Amino acid sequence: MNSVVELLKSHRSIRKFTERPIEPELFEELVRAGQGAATSSFLQGATIVRVKDRAKREKIAQLAGNQPWVASAAAFMIFCADLKRAGNWCREYGKSFEGDFTEHFIIATVDVALMAQSMVCAAESVGLGICYIGGIRNNPGPVSELLELPRGVYPVFGLCLGYPAQDPEIKPRLPLSVIVKEDCYNEQGDRKAIESYDAQVRDYYATRTGGGHGISWSEQVSVLLSEKSRPHMRGFLAEQGFTFR
Amino acid sequence: MNSVVELLKSHRSIRKFTERPIEPELFEELVRAGQGAATSSFLQGATIVRVKDRAKREKIAQLAGNQPWVASAAAFMIFCADLKRAGNWCREYGKSFEGDFTEHFIIATVDVALMAQSMVCAAESVGLGICYIGGIRNNPGPVSELLELPRGVYPVFGLCLGYPAQDPEIKPRLPLSVIVKEDCYNEQGDRKAIESYDAQVRDYYATRTGGGHGISWSEQVSVLLSEKSRPHMRGFLAEQGFTFR
Repeated sequence: MNSVVELLKSHRSIRKFTERPIEPELFEELVRAGQGAATSSFLQGATIVRVKDRAKREKIAQLAGNQPWVASAAAFMIFCADLKRAGNWCREYGKSFEGDFTEHFIIATVDVALMAQSMVCAAESVGLGICYIGGIRNNPGPVSELLELPRGVYPVFGLCLGYPAQDPEIKPRLPLSVIVKEDCYNEQGDRKAIESYDAQVRDYYATRTGGGHGISWSEQVSVLLSEKSRPHMRGFLAEQGFTFR
Repeated sequence: MNSVVELLKSHRSIRKFTERPIEPELFEELVRAGQGAATSSFLQGATIVRVKDRAKREKIAQLAGNQPWVASAAAFMIFCADLKRAGNWCREYGKSFEGDFTEHFIIATVDVALMAQSMVCAAESVGLGICYIGGIRNNPGPVSELLELPRGVYPVFGLCLGYPAQDPEIKPRLPLSVIVKEDCYNEQGDRKAIESYDAQVRDYYATRTGGGHGISWSEQVSVLLSEKSRPHMRGFLAEQGFTFR
């Protein structure tokens, strides 16, 4: 297979970066690569707030649940779903704004993710490492205040970018048979495949640099889905104008 | 800049494909490339239903608002956000399932989009063309019935994949200054930049192969946000178990 496929298969999050900065021209090219991604109904509903201010970086590192790489990466950005930019033009053209439907939320959120991931592919292709920071949703209100995000805009995730100063192992993924189904959804063979995968994940944690928590995939995700995950999100989003009509 | 960056910058949707099939080994490699993408909390909340059945393909092409390329592309997949696979293990480990928070919806939806976009980057790097099909959300209920999607699973978008039999122009994107902000959200200079971009978009439609509707970006998106966009989504998602707690 070609080198792009190999590159994408070998992604892992990077949390230690060298001091090497990212040239402004390179950064712009990476954003343009991100912008090349498909956008639903041509909305282009993503806005990147790049955080350069040191104090803000430190603050966000804390708000994201103490992730120091937010402050230390060569570049850190918050990717925002943005319905304000387009919504401004409703008023301009004398139309009422109805952009608070669940569908609008999906469109904008997907736009953000597609753009970010294309940017990530571009970044990794030039030797940069990345780490998504979903942890900003621990404190979306304070993060939004810090970045002065208006109504119609919400911070989906952060992204650290820089030249890697570590070389972590690749985390094994679910078997293909579990992920890809033909013609209809079914779980035939999944239990067995997941049990064998669970063993692989335990091995990964046991042997990787620095050790690790050694629990299986199924154990990890069962915790995630048995907890009230970030229950503040609904209220926060409503305040930002995303009301899931 | 390197070839990956150039590739990503030059993406455009492909809706006409040659008869050439996609080798099974290549397809699997593309999925693995997609799986390489980051996944929030290790959830791996994406399931791909590849639709091979001819009758189902034709039916989905209609349900997506008459998009014949859904039936004619070498491969067509529905990308689903999947909380069922992980949720099964809550019961298994004697935990209650609480996976219906807004946050869980975001995590799974973003997982799907990141995976799809990495797969798209891989596909385009080997000369394939793609087209996202958000139109399946016109009729998410019938699509889900056809694919037997259970509670905890929802179809986010479709994806056509095949060797291009057309070479459409690249659609211009918003100026970088509008998309990237520093340290805080602001709209300084945006109006002027968007007005100039609007002219560029009008030109694009006027000159591209086959002509086009010739309306600006701001006009298009103001329509999108002044309409009740797919108002059935909220109810449909609730039925699938996504209740936005």
